[in-house]
Amino acid sequence: MNTFRILGIDPGSRVTGVGVVESRGQSLYHVHSECVRAGDGDLGSRLAVIYERIQAVIDECRPHGAAIEKVFMAANPQAALILGHARGVALLAAVQQGLAVAEYSALEIKRAVVGAGSAGKGQVQHMVRVLLGMDHEPPQDAADALACAICHIHTAQGAQHLATAAMADAHSAGNTRE
Amino acid sequence: MNTFRILGIDPGSRVTGVGVVESRGQSLYHVHSECVRAGDGDLGSRLAVIYERIQAVIDECRPHGAAIEKVFMAANPQAALILGHARGVALLAAVQQGLAVAEYSALEIKRAVVGAGSAGKGQVQHMVRVLLGMDHEPPQDAADALACAICHIHTAQGAQHLATAAMADAHSAGNTRE
Repeated sequence: MNTFRILGIDPGSRVTGVGVVESRGQSLYHVHSECVRAGDGDLGSRLAVIYERIQAVIDECRPHGAAIEKVFMAANPQAALILGHARGVALLAAVQQGLAVAEYSALEIKRAVVGAGSAGKGQVQHMVRVLLGMDHEPPQDAADALACAICHIHTAQGAQHLATAAMADAHSAGNTRE
Repeated sequence: MNTFRILGIDPGSRVTGVGVVESRGQSLYHVHSECVRAGDGDLGSRLAVIYERIQAVIDECRPHGAAIEKVFMAANPQAALILGHARGVALLAAVQQGLAVAEYSALEIKRAVVGAGSAGKGQVQHMVRVLLGMDHEPPQDAADALACAICHIHTAQGAQHLATAAMADAHSAGNTRE
C-alpha cells in the first residue's frame, strides 16, 4: 500500500493556511493543519514567522511533496506584490527542505475537493472535513491549504511521482534523516 | 569617526542587485557589489539562489543595516506578484540576520544619488561610480543596489541610528560573532 504525505499551503501576508494530508491506499487522513498568523509587525518580521512556521511543520510532519495555490489576480498590483512576498517565503521554506512544489489554480482545487469550480468557501471547508474524516470543520485558511494538498494527491501524475518518492524514503529509513 | 556599512538590495526574479557601501566620516567606499542571476530553474529554486546569495554577502561583509527599493507599479498584477516573491525572500534573508531594513522609493534614491528624481539609469550608474570612487561603472542592477545603500546613508535618521548600531557592534567586538 502506497503511503505518502503532502503539505498544502495557502499563503497570505496576514494569515497563511498550512495543512498536511496523508494518503494511505485509497484513503486520506488529516495529519496536521493550522492558520499561521504573522502578527502585526513589519513585513520582514511577518515573513520570518511564515517561513519559520512552515519549516517547523515540515520538520514535524515530514511530507514527501508540497502544493501551493496559483494566484490569478485582476485586482490591484500592490496587493499582488504583498501576497507575492508571503508566497515567496512559503515556496522557499518548502524548496529548502527538498520538497517539489506543485501549483494548482483555485478552480482546480475546488473541482478536486467539491467537484465544482464554482464552489464557495463553506463548501470547501465542509468537503475537506468529510474527505479527511475530521470531527469538525477546519478554519477557512487551514481548509484551503488541506484542499490544495488533497488536489495534489488526486492528481494522478503527482500521486505516481510521490509514491515513488515515499518508497525511496522508506528504503532509506534506516539512514539518519536529521 | 563613525564607520558603518549598509547593504542595498534591488530585487528582481531574474537578476537581483546587491551592494554594500561603507560610510567612514564624510566618505563613502565600495565594499562589494554583484548581480545575482537566479538562473532558468523553476521559481522556487530561483528564490533559493537569491536568498542564499544575500545571506552569503551579509556573512562576508557584515553590514549594520539594509535598504531595499520600494515598489510602486501601475503595471500588471502578475509581474508584481512575481517581483513580490523575490523581494520577500530578499527581505527575509536580511531580517533573519538581524538587520533592520529601510525602504526608499525610486524617486528618493535618484534624488539622493543624482540630485534629480527624473534621472535615467545611466546617470545613476555614473554617479554611483563617482560617489564611491570606483574605477568603472557597476552594472545596472548592482548600481541600483549601491544607490539604495547610499540613499540610506544620506538619510539623517538612518545614519544616526546606524552609527549607534555600529558603535554597539564595536563594543561587542571581543565576543564571538560567528
